Amino acid sequence: MEEEYDHFGEKAFRNMSVPPWTKQITIRALVTSFVLSIIFSFIVCKIIFTTGIVPSFNIAAGFMGFVAIKSYTKLLNKCGLLQQPFTRQENTVIQTCVIASSGIAFNSGIGSHLLAMSQIVASQVNGGNTPINMKNFSLGWVIVFLFVVSFVGLFSSVPLRKLMILKYNLTYPSGTATAILMNSLHTPKGAKLAKKQVVLLFKSFCGSFCFACFEWFFSAGEGCGFSSFPTFGLQALQQKFYFDFSCTYIGVGMISSKMVNISLLLGSIISWGALWPWIEQKKGIWYSQDLPHSSLYGMQGYRIFVAIAMMLGDGLYHCISMLLQVVYNLRLQHLNKQDSSSSINPKGDDPISTMDYDNQRRIEYFLKDQIPTWVACTGYIALAIISIFTVSHIFPQLKWYHILVAYLIAPVIAFCNAYGCGLTDWSLASNYGKIAIILFSSWVGLTNGGIVAGLASCGVMLSIISTASDLMQDFKTGYLTLTSPRSMFLSQALGTAMGCIISPMIFWAFIKVYPIGDPEGSYPAPYAQVYRGIALLGANGFSFLPKHCLELAIISFFSAVVIDIIRDILMHCETKYRLYRFVPNPMCLAIPFYIGGNFAIDMCIGNLIVYLWEKKNKIQARDYAPAVASGLICGDSLWSIPAAGLSLKKITPPICMKFLSASMNSKVDNFLSGGNS
Amino acid sequence: MEEEYDHFGEKAFRNMSVPPWTKQITIRALVTSFVLSIIFSFIVCKIIFTTGIVPSFNIAAGFMGFVAIKSYTKLLNKCGLLQQPFTRQENTVIQTCVIASSGIAFNSGIGSHLLAMSQIVASQVNGGNTPINMKNFSLGWVIVFLFVVSFVGLFSSVPLRKLMILKYNLTYPSGTATAILMNSLHTPKGAKLAKKQVVLLFKSFCGSFCFACFEWFFSAGEGCGFSSFPTFGLQALQQKFYFDFSCTYIGVGMISSKMVNISLLLGSIISWGALWPWIEQKKGIWYSQDLPHSSLYGMQGYRIFVAIAMMLGDGLYHCISMLLQVVYNLRLQHLNKQDSSSSINPKGDDPISTMDYDNQRRIEYFLKDQIPTWVACTGYIALAIISIFTVSHIFPQLKWYHILVAYLIAPVIAFCNAYGCGLTDWSLASNYGKIAIILFSSWVGLTNGGIVAGLASCGVMLSIISTASDLMQDFKTGYLTLTSPRSMFLSQALGTAMGCIISPMIFWAFIKVYPIGDPEGSYPAPYAQVYRGIALLGANGFSFLPKHCLELAIISFFSAVVIDIIRDILMHCETKYRLYRFVPNPMCLAIPFYIGGNFAIDMCIGNLIVYLWEKKNKIQARDYAPAVASGLICGDSLWSIPAAGLSLKKITPPICMKFLSASMNSKVDNFLSGGNS
Repeated sequence: MEEEYDHFGEKAFRNMSVPPWTKQITIRALVTSFVLSIIFSFIVCKIIFTTGIVPSFNIAAGFMGFVAIKSYTKLLNKCGLLQQPFTRQENTVIQTCVIASSGIAFNSGIGSHLLAMSQIVASQVNGGNTPINMKNFSLGWVIVFLFVVSFVGLFSSVPLRKLMILKYNLTYPSGTATAILMNSLHTPKGAKLAKKQVVLLFKSFCGSFCFACFEWFFSAGEGCGFSSFPTFGLQALQQKFYFDFSCTYIGVGMISSKMVNISLLLGSIISWGALWPWIEQKKGIWYSQDLPHSSLYGMQGYRIFVAIAMMLGDGLYHCISMLLQVVYNLRLQHLNKQDSSSSINPKGDDPISTMDYDNQRRIEYFLKDQIPTWVACTGYIALAIISIFTVSHIFPQLKWYHILVAYLIAPVIAFCNAYGCGLTDWSLASNYGKIAIILFSSWVGLTNGGIVAGLASCGVMLSIISTASDLMQDFKTGYLTLTSPRSMFLSQALGTAMGCIISPMIFWAFIKVYPIGDPEGSYPAPYAQVYRGIALLGANGFSFLPKHCLELAIISFFSAVVIDIIRDILMHCETKYRLYRFVPNPMCLAIPFYIGGNFAIDMCIGNLIVYLWEKKNKIQARDYAPAVASGLICGDSLWSIPAAGLSLKKITPPICMKFLSASMNSKVDNFLSGGNS
Repeated sequence: MEEEYDHFGEKAFRNMSVPPWTKQITIRALVTSFVLSIIFSFIVCKIIFTTGIVPSFNIAAGFMGFVAIKSYTKLLNKCGLLQQPFTRQENTVIQTCVIASSGIAFNSGIGSHLLAMSQIVASQVNGGNTPINMKNFSLGWVIVFLFVVSFVGLFSSVPLRKLMILKYNLTYPSGTATAILMNSLHTPKGAKLAKKQVVLLFKSFCGSFCFACFEWFFSAGEGCGFSSFPTFGLQALQQKFYFDFSCTYIGVGMISSKMVNISLLLGSIISWGALWPWIEQKKGIWYSQDLPHSSLYGMQGYRIFVAIAMMLGDGLYHCISMLLQVVYNLRLQHLNKQDSSSSINPKGDDPISTMDYDNQRRIEYFLKDQIPTWVACTGYIALAIISIFTVSHIFPQLKWYHILVAYLIAPVIAFCNAYGCGLTDWSLASNYGKIAIILFSSWVGLTNGGIVAGLASCGVMLSIISTASDLMQDFKTGYLTLTSPRSMFLSQALGTAMGCIISPMIFWAFIKVYPIGDPEGSYPAPYAQVYRGIALLGANGFSFLPKHCLELAIISFFSAVVIDIIRDILMHCETKYRLYRFVPNPMCLAIPFYIGGNFAIDMCIGNLIVYLWEKKNKIQARDYAPAVASGLICGDSLWSIPAAGLSLKKITPPICMKFLSASMNSKVDNFLSGGNS
């Protein structure tokens, strides 16, 4: 299904033994992870409290881990103290642990749903300011809540692992990029191609980093800088059609398949090019024209619910078809008494007889130290039971059956999200979280504390959904670096434990010093208000949906299912032209419905670059494009560290590159000349 | 002295005969020239009346000529009518004719010094609004004035030809680029390298054209768009240090020598980085702080006079050293009875024994149909005498001796300017014109009609100075395309005659319809007011110079002379390390004094690209860099035609890409949100 680029191939590592999983988790790795976890959690918290838009730190974490251990081992080497060599598996373990712990800082909701329960936020949103609809922060209950909730998510992701990475062979662009970086960093000397790839990777890395730095200078204020460059005009910018010069997404486009990119573009054309403008014409008829642009009662409601319906349609279809396949496979096995392992077909749709060396080795290590599915399932159920009791104790507004329902729905959605994330690198966890808020708020009702109930259940759901997709990126990295699944799981568990303690501590430190959540302060935590608003909507009942939104959502749900059915029929019945390749992917179609077309355009440009490169020199493109792509993603991501540092020191970008229409510009010029003279 | 790139070499044309000069000027060429002359003159007039900043149309004219004749011959060929083949010489003739005639539109001063005499402009500048200081436009006297004045310039440029192109072997980047384009367009099929060069040329041409088009969309209003991109910050932008994304100057930098680029950069650092900020600190002490930024009484005065002093120093040094060399050569010849032609050394400073095929052929044709120097000198003197009588009749404010002085000084300045233009592609004619206004205005005095006298003498001087540099570009093109000097001269004469009639006609048509020169109208013709202001300054006497400006100008004048002397001494005495290569060029140092560093940065980036390319693959860089450079210059220039078309239809760019400081941005955001809500 997805193309897989095998670069920094295993041949370069042929003479290096892979350490057993117990040797992959070392003390120095844990210490490094701990220090980096604190740094990254701190950065994430800061960002959540200011803008709420957190970039992916996968690569940055991997790179920082490498630099830390490498300089440490170099230092020890100079002192003559013999040390265990630093392997890429160890590096992956560090990266995984840091991502798991700093992920908690984001998923825990200390800047969104948990903060939304507090009095300071409640006082800013009209309605529902009753004691039952508030719960102030305290270190104790937050840590307990995070512990019971986060580990459930960890266990839920284990069974998905084999399915997503071996069976569907999904890309997980960030995970792949991290793995390529990791492999390139640890390539033994002498491997010529790998060296060239490393050189190219660092060139594109430096280019991307410098460009990100350059971009920063022009991004003072909202709507400033390259990220809102009206490449195709201001009208198109409003419809979210623009190229935003994001090296990250150019890189992601380079390592994604053509159909993913085309589907994304098609989705943004259908939604932002046709559907939304059409609905906007109904303004005043279908929905009130006095609403702000971001109101769920208006346009934003259509966007979110139509997109989510399509995603759910695609996700459910995949769930069901997967279940059917499993049942069919089990029956076949029962009939033929086949070895169960043969049902794993690592090349997805194309049953190939010969498997290359890289994949052989990767699958070998991927399947080596497995965590048995029964352990994962037992763990999930046991933790869910503990969680049901503890959470309903912390939030009396939530009854045990509410939480039980959440734990029954969550894995299905987690599957959908992990699948979509594997295709596009875009996790939609927060959207599912918002749906959860509405569902549970309306279920519990305003008078019974529906707001707190909705927000708490969002925490329960989000943790599972988000962890599944985040950790799947890590598992992809682990797969490509031959890291043992067992050491991965352990480092994730350790990281989660660290995160459950570090994040509340940082939050506590912040809240002692600053008025977090005060819109006038320097840390307004904008998402807290948004989440409380959604909860209020839900608690007020379902009737809030704008006119015809439900019909449109149902249409889009079934469109997704129909597209999937057409694709599967074509795949099985028509093999001559392989027409199924030209059927768009509903998940990819849906994502831009809500987000807009800009990132799809970035990705298509990235894909176009690879396409032209392949036209010119196919072998060269195959060899070097993923390295360049990883460099682009890494450089852009790594800039987030100095950028966060600058933001910590309250150094803001000095210049705003603003885009004004000609008429607006003359107004502004008049204002400026008037203001200055 | 200057490096010369020999591309689209003559070997590709080995089997094509060069037609005799009488066959290079054909009727179809003249008709095409006439039509294109009208189009280009129209465009130039429009631009002069709106902004006054006219780009170089050399390449556009050559390309349009090619397309016109090529489609015409193709059409005739299809009809079976046998035609004379279209040669690059014929193409050069068209280009030369069009440039000569559209050049008149600019140099004639119908948007600057001639318009400045009119009542409408006089009424806007305080002082000197007496009848003797005004002269309104009338078709009669303007055509007569242009005829007598322009042809003098034509004759003055002929003797400089051999000196600039053979002796000094100057680059003339625009002329070279045009020639490369012309050669590439006419390369016979089968020349493999040339074909590859053509492909690369058209790629970079298309890229540059598309980028220019892209840039256009963001350039609504002043200070908008890529041309004022604060690449190194807003502070640096104010000091004119920024990369303005000009493909033209990147291309120019690619075909200029390293020392030219470094000198320009050095000059901008010395002036805008150190000297001007230092003088600005004296604001209120050395000059009044109430002056507008563009006032010649203030900063602008320092800039212009220091720059011009250095240019004059360098120019005069070259004039004198050239005269001395001529005298020395003549003496040597007299003693040794040598053949006079051997004194021409086409490789400038390096006496080489073997001359390559390209240069042999070029020199052969360049020296073939010469216009004897005595013809040029006689023509100059005869026309000057006619001019003296006619001009003093048209402008009674100017006495015969004033005009005689102008005709004595002008050739020296024309030499300086043509020399500088050959190095950098930047003609400073309008600066010399401004000096002329001041000199003659102050000489004649306000009560005797000093304003009109100054402006008229500016016309006399400018025509000679500007024509010399413009036509030298054409002669360079002619040299590289083996076009006969005689056909070049004839087409220039015809073009000049066309221009002298077309431009006033267009001006007349405009003035009948629009209130040209009215600052509130759509055609404010900004330069008309500037020129009248300068004339007023001059008429009021020399005391207007800001404090210490004269001292600084004298210092800069002698610095230029000293640098030139050091360079010449090093060149003759020290041959081991060839240190003279590292002495900057004073002309190049001076240009950014007035204009700023942005174009120097563009050029340095262009030069850096070639440098890195040469590091990677020297032969490839040598073969293809000039083609890429020409493509960049051509594409950017050619966009000026559709841009002018859009401007004619009053279509302005839709978006302004504005750069605001962070604090200014928040002010503007407040204003916009206040203004919109």
